Amino acid sequence: MRRLYAALFLLSLSSYAAGPSSDVPLRGYTAPDSATEVQWEQKFRAIPDTNRIRENMRRLSARPHHVGSPYDKDNAEWLLAQLKSYGLDAKIEQFEALFPTPKSRKLELLGAQRFVAKLEEPTLAVDPTSGQKDEQLPTYNAYSRNGDVTAPLVYVNYGAPADYEQLDAMGVSVKGAIVIARYGETWRGIKPKLAAQHGAVGCIIYSDPKDDGYARGDTYPDGPMRPPDGVQRGSVMDMPIYPGDPQTPGVGAVPGVKLIPLDQVQTITKIPVLPISYADAKPFLLALEGQTVPENWRGGLPITYKTGPSKTMAHLAVAFNWDRKPLYDVVATIPGSTFPDQWVIRGNHHDAWVNGADDPLSGTSAELEEARTFGELLKQGWKPQRTIIYCFWDGEEPALLGSTEWAEYHADELKKHAVVYFNSDSNARGFFRAEGSHSLENFVNAVTKDIEDPETNMSVWKRQRLANEVRQTPQMRAELPESRGEDRARPDTRIAALGSGSDYTVFIDHLGIASVNLGYGGEDEGGGQYHSVYDDFYYYTHFMDTDFVYGRALAQTAGTMMMRMADADMIPYQFTDQADTIHRYVTEVKRLADTMRTEIKDRNMNIAEGAYKAAADPKKVSVVPPVETVPPYFNFAPLDQASDDLTAAAADYEKSFAAHGASGNAQVNAELIQTERALTDPGGLPNRPWFQNMVYAPGMYTGYGVKTLPAVREAIEQKQWAIVDTQIARTAAAIEREVEVLKAASKILSGS
Amino acid sequence: MRRLYAALFLLSLSSYAAGPSSDVPLRGYTAPDSATEVQWEQKFRAIPDTNRIRENMRRLSARPHHVGSPYDKDNAEWLLAQLKSYGLDAKIEQFEALFPTPKSRKLELLGAQRFVAKLEEPTLAVDPTSGQKDEQLPTYNAYSRNGDVTAPLVYVNYGAPADYEQLDAMGVSVKGAIVIARYGETWRGIKPKLAAQHGAVGCIIYSDPKDDGYARGDTYPDGPMRPPDGVQRGSVMDMPIYPGDPQTPGVGAVPGVKLIPLDQVQTITKIPVLPISYADAKPFLLALEGQTVPENWRGGLPITYKTGPSKTMAHLAVAFNWDRKPLYDVVATIPGSTFPDQWVIRGNHHDAWVNGADDPLSGTSAELEEARTFGELLKQGWKPQRTIIYCFWDGEEPALLGSTEWAEYHADELKKHAVVYFNSDSNARGFFRAEGSHSLENFVNAVTKDIEDPETNMSVWKRQRLANEVRQTPQMRAELPESRGEDRARPDTRIAALGSGSDYTVFIDHLGIASVNLGYGGEDEGGGQYHSVYDDFYYYTHFMDTDFVYGRALAQTAGTMMMRMADADMIPYQFTDQADTIHRYVTEVKRLADTMRTEIKDRNMNIAEGAYKAAADPKKVSVVPPVETVPPYFNFAPLDQASDDLTAAAADYEKSFAAHGASGNAQVNAELIQTERALTDPGGLPNRPWFQNMVYAPGMYTGYGVKTLPAVREAIEQKQWAIVDTQIARTAAAIEREVEVLKAASKILSGS
Repeated sequence: MRRLYAALFLLSLSSYAAGPSSDVPLRGYTAPDSATEVQWEQKFRAIPDTNRIRENMRRLSARPHHVGSPYDKDNAEWLLAQLKSYGLDAKIEQFEALFPTPKSRKLELLGAQRFVAKLEEPTLAVDPTSGQKDEQLPTYNAYSRNGDVTAPLVYVNYGAPADYEQLDAMGVSVKGAIVIARYGETWRGIKPKLAAQHGAVGCIIYSDPKDDGYARGDTYPDGPMRPPDGVQRGSVMDMPIYPGDPQTPGVGAVPGVKLIPLDQVQTITKIPVLPISYADAKPFLLALEGQTVPENWRGGLPITYKTGPSKTMAHLAVAFNWDRKPLYDVVATIPGSTFPDQWVIRGNHHDAWVNGADDPLSGTSAELEEARTFGELLKQGWKPQRTIIYCFWDGEEPALLGSTEWAEYHADELKKHAVVYFNSDSNARGFFRAEGSHSLENFVNAVTKDIEDPETNMSVWKRQRLANEVRQTPQMRAELPESRGEDRARPDTRIAALGSGSDYTVFIDHLGIASVNLGYGGEDEGGGQYHSVYDDFYYYTHFMDTDFVYGRALAQTAGTMMMRMADADMIPYQFTDQADTIHRYVTEVKRLADTMRTEIKDRNMNIAEGAYKAAADPKKVSVVPPVETVPPYFNFAPLDQASDDLTAAAADYEKSFAAHGASGNAQVNAELIQTERALTDPGGLPNRPWFQNMVYAPGMYTGYGVKTLPAVREAIEQKQWAIVDTQIARTAAAIEREVEVLKAASKILSGS
Repeated sequence: MRRLYAALFLLSLSSYAAGPSSDVPLRGYTAPDSATEVQWEQKFRAIPDTNRIRENMRRLSARPHHVGSPYDKDNAEWLLAQLKSYGLDAKIEQFEALFPTPKSRKLELLGAQRFVAKLEEPTLAVDPTSGQKDEQLPTYNAYSRNGDVTAPLVYVNYGAPADYEQLDAMGVSVKGAIVIARYGETWRGIKPKLAAQHGAVGCIIYSDPKDDGYARGDTYPDGPMRPPDGVQRGSVMDMPIYPGDPQTPGVGAVPGVKLIPLDQVQTITKIPVLPISYADAKPFLLALEGQTVPENWRGGLPITYKTGPSKTMAHLAVAFNWDRKPLYDVVATIPGSTFPDQWVIRGNHHDAWVNGADDPLSGTSAELEEARTFGELLKQGWKPQRTIIYCFWDGEEPALLGSTEWAEYHADELKKHAVVYFNSDSNARGFFRAEGSHSLENFVNAVTKDIEDPETNMSVWKRQRLANEVRQTPQMRAELPESRGEDRARPDTRIAALGSGSDYTVFIDHLGIASVNLGYGGEDEGGGQYHSVYDDFYYYTHFMDTDFVYGRALAQTAGTMMMRMADADMIPYQFTDQADTIHRYVTEVKRLADTMRTEIKDRNMNIAEGAYKAAADPKKVSVVPPVETVPPYFNFAPLDQASDDLTAAAADYEKSFAAHGASGNAQVNAELIQTERALTDPGGLPNRPWFQNMVYAPGMYTGYGVKTLPAVREAIEQKQWAIVDTQIARTAAAIEREVEVLKAASKILSGS
């Protein structure tokens, strides 16, 4: 769904200081077990084959395979057959979910400049699958409500919260209007959500050529960027409330499950939404009148971008079939020999919006090759200590349906048994990147020291770390001054936190299972065919990881992670990195409160002194912002205390762990599994109880983008001053629960 | 020439704290003289008439009036007649200078996509003067050498030093190529200069629609922005070496003066140059191949910008008439009653590239109204204590010709007599802005507290100060952390330093005369017709200061400055603001050296570790930068000492001044005049001895942009480590010379 590299490339600051892994045993392994493991891992990494990955993609992308399509089921059955042919115990677990598809779509500009949007991606002669019209889903946004509206247009830039502040300042209202927003910056579902909150009656989302079209490179099929008629499909469900089947939140949607009636579903948009191409968008943008937009609102079309409203009316009408469709999750299991009740889980989705070569098959094809490789090793006598589960999810694109329903259905078992969840999705050429639970940061570092970058022949860990040195601009360093000194000194490269956008969401955010999302990318200017009919085998094999060496690298990386986690005597979580990271988050939310206090005070003073009036052009409409309540001071003591307690407990655990050695201890392993679970609170986040992790969540108004310590951070960002202290206490309590688990683990280790 | 508001809007950080001027006498005035002055100033400000300013512009812009044109002379004679009619003692002072005009111009793209550039600005039916073809200068860059070259094209973004570093990193050379650069960022003359230094054989400069075309607003004649065929003419002489007549550096070019032979002139470009429109540029940009450019290199055309080189060749041929042309400076004098040998000078040029309504007549028309107002006051019995000189310069556009030749010719007198030079040029709606000598910062603040903003009815000082509060983004504050606390606390709003771009250059940079450049702007998106045939009366009266209220404000502001400076008992220079500013500059150059040392060390370490290789895409050309010498540590002690000494001397002077009262003292006034002169060093700056001010200079590679403490700052920036200590000592010595002058003035005051 979301490209891993669509986010800012380098959130983690780090450096090359330590060397690759040495003769010290792998963490969590006794010396002899480590030596054996290293040998098996080397065997593992030698097996994945770029040609097989290519052929996996060719087969899986041969026809459109969205949820409910014939080829979606066909792919699931083919995956099942493949997994069985590898000797794995595999099955299809079937669920069902609401998945609306278009019945009718219409968008037109009325009046003298009458224009009817084409809403169609043309067949390209050179691209053999681009013309599979009968099976392609039309261009639309899933979970838009039905609607038929005629209204003036207003341009809202990316449609993010700050964009509405800008419109307010310019005296432009979207009330009663159809907004036209460009893709980018926020997750697309935020655009209609905010538009509706501001009173708009419809929402058009278009792909501006500045963001993924000709501004960034040659357009398809001459190059990888989006052509004039290319359209980004995608879900606009309000997933920050909850993902998965809208009619069964928190419950696995098996046949016969009780459904929330459609008209009571909270996560369907409040206004009709439709995505369009930039060829279709241009006449609508040209119809806008009013003020010229600020510089950072300008797109790449050769026009003067204006806010609107338009005098000319636009007419938007969409209607959908509100059907429930089957979901085919393909699941293969390798039982653990020693700790069969400890599950190491891997996943990547297999459904796509259309042919989906890049998204998701660049990841799926590698994942399948991993599974085959484990099949080979099993034949050679290898056995994992823990149970390995390989999942190929259906229905990720509409709303993380397959993974969410599966994990909700198996929630009780997962809470008891799940050690870790490793996710991938689209994959491309370039640099390793991981986001995830910080108890796994050290583990991710250790594994990636052993993976060779296929194009530079240094380890992917070293490459990422060195590249960070060069790619960090002075500005990035200035913005994160606390990281500056640590670049070369910190042994572990930082990993970013997880927001949302792929199948890890239910694992980390709902169930509190330590998770990592990983992949390669950042080199080719990709993303131009994202969620379009042109994201297909021709595109991927001409412009992306054309020789599939980064597909192989993904299989090697994720496979090594699975193996090393499954084979370890002691689960190799490490908590000092986590404590260090949480300490940073605590610093951040404290600084956020201070910054907002200063800004609001400054702004109020400026309003009182007449500074906004002085700065405004008297010949243009401009609105002075309202005076706001100055944020009170908050009691951060519980968070400071929890952060310090975690730091101490993590250090103690390291000491006990080192003293104890790594010989397996079932009791300690059982405690360790609960460390991430401890971070959840069954009450969940304010107004969205499905999200229970108190450290990580996707932002209520970012969608993809993470909010760490979300209950606290969002209460401050949303200016809900009255609840901040409560959320600090709840968040601190979650961290203290982890402290207790860690203390228990240390105690067992010291006592044993 | 340069629009005051083309530069970053707010260099000065400041705030609204002190109120408007109170009952305290004006600085430099005894209480009774202050009361009289305030009355005269009020009378002055009541007189300027927006209709007269409009009619001045209508008359002066009626026909093209570039140097050497019939209407240029006609305008000079009309100005003379006007000044005489006001009762002023006026004359035309005639000089002459080299001013090349086009003989032939050709630009074409060869090969299959053959395209011949139009090089022509079409006549617009609604714009009555746009069709005066017979008198218009064709589109060209003055002081381009003759040349006829055929070569591949390379796109160099703005053609600034950093752009060539980027090209180096991408493995793209301009050797033997014709570069195509967009207007903006640097002064245009820097573009061919750097291109030639990097081995290019020709230079095309075009106006990208992102910078002043449709991206910023509706295009002419629907709006103020540049239309597809609009072209920016302009000088490309190497003025950072010296401005003025290229054949007579340092000497006033009166008939019979000895001329440097043309082939020995240093300031003519080394390669042929031609400016074009974006309609003409598009086919050339489309011919570029190679890598897609970095994000900040992308312009506003609907194309993929690439670096080149092009496979297709371009052919550029230009030839010029290398004639010497007459210059008509119009100069009016009002003799001083008490200190006739102390000159208060005001200037604005009258020549234009074509009709020049905005540039320069928006300033010239106001200046003429100022002169008329003084004529009125003289009739009412007012007499200035000092001599007032009003100058209307010719030949500013090609190379500051009229002002430079005049000031070089009168250099000896000016060094003795000049108190101050107040300059203006293009003027528009919006906020007051001043750049200049910091001994005048307090004076500028004091005057602007008494000028009413015509659209908000608060003082222009208060408006600017309040607006700064709102317009300063958090990022701007973060970049200037030292300014943050002072926003509201510092009594005087900071003024920016002077680089180059208008007629103050010879005064401040060559002769060391305290100067201020002032004007209004920042509200309308102007600049779109800059140096085009469309910068005319129709344009200005439809899109700029359409009711001329800011023209009147300029006349009121500059007139009040002239009057208050001419009437004062003691020259109201103030040095604590200056000392504070120089202290900041010293801090900046020290930080610059440290920053460069850190950056070079970091880069060298990255090179040694292979970080550039790790960060590079192996499938793209990229070049590792060369290892560089780490800058040594420099002896900044003399500058620190001089800065402290100036701070002490300025404070002492304030004390003596306060104790003495303001009754006129000829001896002190004579000392004070020498304070700015003391900052000059007859040896001048390294490699450009014409520039003698050791505190202010236009940058060698910025052209317009100022470099403060230029000998030191540029030695560091240009990595001439060996000369840094010497330049520190020379710069410190200049400041110490001012300290001595100040001490002498204080001593006289204390003794008297």
